[in-house]
Amino acid sequence: MRIEAKLEALGLVLPEALKTPGMRLPFAPVRIRGNRAYISGHGPQNLDGTITGPLGKVGEEVSQEQANQAARLTALAILGSLKRALGDLDRVTAWLRVFGMVNSAPGFTQQPAVINGFSDLILELYGEEAGQHARSAVGMAGLPLGMPVEIEAEVEIAV
Amino acid sequence: MRIEAKLEALGLVLPEALKTPGMRLPFAPVRIRGNRAYISGHGPQNLDGTITGPLGKVGEEVSQEQANQAARLTALAILGSLKRALGDLDRVTAWLRVFGMVNSAPGFTQQPAVINGFSDLILELYGEEAGQHARSAVGMAGLPLGMPVEIEAEVEIAV
Amino acid sequence: MRIEAKLEALGLVLPEALKTPGMRLPFAPVRIRGNRAYISGHGPQNLDGTITGPLGKVGEEVSQEQANQAARLTALAILGSLKRALGDLDRVTAWLRVFGMVNSAPGFTQQPAVINGFSDLILELYGEEAGQHARSAVGMAGLPLGMPVEIEAEVEIAV
Repeated sequence: MRIEAKLEALGLVLPEALKTPGMRLPFAPVRIRGNRAYISGHGPQNLDGTITGPLGKVGEEVSQEQANQAARLTALAILGSLKRALGDLDRVTAWLRVFGMVNSAPGFTQQPAVINGFSDLILELYGEEAGQHARSAVGMAGLPLGMPVEIEAEVEIAV
Repeated sequence: MRIEAKLEALGLVLPEALKTPGMRLPFAPVRIRGNRAYISGHGPQNLDGTITGPLGKVGEEVSQEQANQAARLTALAILGSLKRALGDLDRVTAWLRVFGMVNSAPGFTQQPAVINGFSDLILELYGEEAGQHARSAVGMAGLPLGMPVEIEAEVEIAV
Repeated sequence: MRIEAKLEALGLVLPEALKTPGMRLPFAPVRIRGNRAYISGHGPQNLDGTITGPLGKVGEEVSQEQANQAARLTALAILGSLKRALGDLDRVTAWLRVFGMVNSAPGFTQQPAVINGFSDLILELYGEEAGQHARSAVGMAGLPLGMPVEIEAEVEIAV
């Protein structure tokens, strides 16, 4: 439970499973097959699992700094889903692919600075070896519920 | 041929291979390697393989209900490509990753309700075990030919 | 070194590693695990590694032909990263998944014609067997630094 000890040392708490009242999501937060876990698109959550604000387009309603924080919260939401799916976060042996989506206002071009909120926390927790990943950080025309950030990923797991 | 029997029982017919007159697509609808099949972005097709309307942005020219139906048709288009690539749709042993892209008008935030048209049919055909998948449903600024929906995916196959 | 011989025969030179002054990118251009290489989103680069113009939305500031050329340059940028990560480009035994993102002006629907600049070069270099790939070509609301094109990919490698 090394990763969870690190989270505790940082004072970070993982949120409960996603709650989206009135929105049906007929798929798995994490899909496991062999030594791979495919992680559904997640957004920033409150501790009770509901989506947290501010909502809207980054560069307009949401500032770059707020979006960076949303990306960090998205990392915690994904870790919460991985914890429930895997039992122990140490079972993630390598982060592989991170696809970072930013709900972007016209002219906003700092998507990487936003998604760094995710990458920085993953690297702090897992280190340069297991935490390293390939990444894209790109601008979307819209995201569910007006979330400023959504991130999907693929990781290698110990079987 | 269990999946095809289910399709027939539902009265569903798979469309022919994609036809895009005047548009050159120098890649494979399905790329197979080992026990993985990578599925190119597909859209809603007519039975003759041409792209079917309505075209345009969801939330403007295309309603949420029409887009949900387009996502269902996209599932049939993908199943058609898988049938041609694999011979038997039962060879898909697990759906893994589904990336659902919705051509979104400003302010449209119900991308999950649209892509449910895809997920619901895959789960009905393959069941909760093989049909389960990780998913993102997000808003794009544009899609080829003005399609309202495009979906790419990765599945596990029996070798 | 067959692929590099082909590049030389075509008069093509691979750019240096990406340089983005003032933009921190805390992730790997290529993430290798087992027989898979996950390739981060890349854009068109100058030989010195900086991002090359024209920048802006395809269909407005950037023409379809310029964007097709940007996609071709993006292929060279990715090959440069693969060369540094793998040592020899012949180690790529199969292209699997290509995700082509086009910074799209309202109404632009020719994303496939843009990303063909990438696919055509990969197929010319690797041939129909190893070079074949699944692909999506879609419209984004924004890309880092205003790049007209960004492409991420997954390939199989010899271990």
